[in-house]
Amino acid sequence: MQEMSQLHAIFDRTRGFIQRFMGIIQPVIDAAQDDHTRLYYHHILEEEEQRIGRLDVLVPYLDSLASERKTEQLSDRELSHLLSDINLERFGLHNFREHLELSLYEFQDEETRQLLNDMREATHNDYLLVKDIMTSLSERFSDVVFTGSLTDDHDEGHDIHQVDHLKASASQSPAAHSTAPEARASVSPVGKKGLTVGSLKHL
Amino acid sequence: MQEMSQLHAIFDRTRGFIQRFMGIIQPVIDAAQDDHTRLYYHHILEEEEQRIGRLDVLVPYLDSLASERKTEQLSDRELSHLLSDINLERFGLHNFREHLELSLYEFQDEETRQLLNDMREATHNDYLLVKDIMTSLSERFSDVVFTGSLTDDHDEGHDIHQVDHLKASASQSPAAHSTAPEARASVSPVGKKGLTVGSLKHL
Repeated sequence: MQEMSQLHAIFDRTRGFIQRFMGIIQPVIDAAQDDHTRLYYHHILEEEEQRIGRLDVLVPYLDSLASERKTEQLSDRELSHLLSDINLERFGLHNFREHLELSLYEFQDEETRQLLNDMREATHNDYLLVKDIMTSLSERFSDVVFTGSLTDDHDEGHDIHQVDHLKASASQSPAAHSTAPEARASVSPVGKKGLTVGSLKHL
Repeated sequence: MQEMSQLHAIFDRTRGFIQRFMGIIQPVIDAAQDDHTRLYYHHILEEEEQRIGRLDVLVPYLDSLASERKTEQLSDRELSHLLSDINLERFGLHNFREHLELSLYEFQDEETRQLLNDMREATHNDYLLVKDIMTSLSERFSDVVFTGSLTDDHDEGHDIHQVDHLKASASQSPAAHSTAPEARASVSPVGKKGLTVGSLKHL
């Protein structure tokens, strides 16, 4: 089944991306000067570590399904669990994209920003591809009970996904990265692009 | 089986906490003055939404296992998947605790901080309880293949978990919450513990 090969390639690729991402973020944790910054990036890395743990089981399984053409022999229950696992990793790709976007606000050097953004774009494309494959598999195995939902599309209905975070993180003054209202108010009126509530509504 | 009732209570409680947490965080997103802050809290809420989606399936299932005493009748494969699902939500509790800790750095008012901290403490205790229950279940069903790992304990070996974030977030001035070195340097000489520009260089 073609889809299993595609899924295998996608999730194998993202494992490699996580490793590169960790190599970028770990030095920030090691050099962090306050508990909040350390907790923030530590938290992101831990979530990616958890994802690697799951992918280390899923990727070889997808490989065995693809190479031995075993998908058609799976029971309904096995197929249902496989779809759930793939759906979980679809969310994983979505969350990873956001981890990459959040990290763009940390780095000023072009080389790191380019690498983060390249991974962000590839991850977004992989996320969309997994969504398409899930739709196709769900249709084909429509008699299989699948407890996840494909309608909770995390790319629609959220203004924040329409923001170009590569540009936004570059055009804001660094102080605008603060999560503290006081810092935002006093330091950074720039970078808000003059958006109004109305203009954001349909983005 | 006693454990299923305990697990049901824990995951039902955390669903309620997520709802309360969302009620606290959504106004921060709505009032965010920059893309980074909006993305940051939006990301956290989305991960919790994903967790609610999973718990909405798991909680009724645990309830049915507890009330109908069906656990002993599960096949090895069903038990294996149940253990995997519980293990995933063990990580979910851990991540939620960190979301609560990160949010402590946002709020100054005592009422909100107290609520966040109460949920943080209860969540940590629930996390430890789930770990104990998992160990007990894994031993009892030792012939069941469980692909997760109970050894990747996310509470050991990480200094960040030894920090009292309630105290740490209170003792820093709000502007010190920034992840941007410049914001810390220009806005918040307080709470920087004697940092110099040189010491921030590798952030």
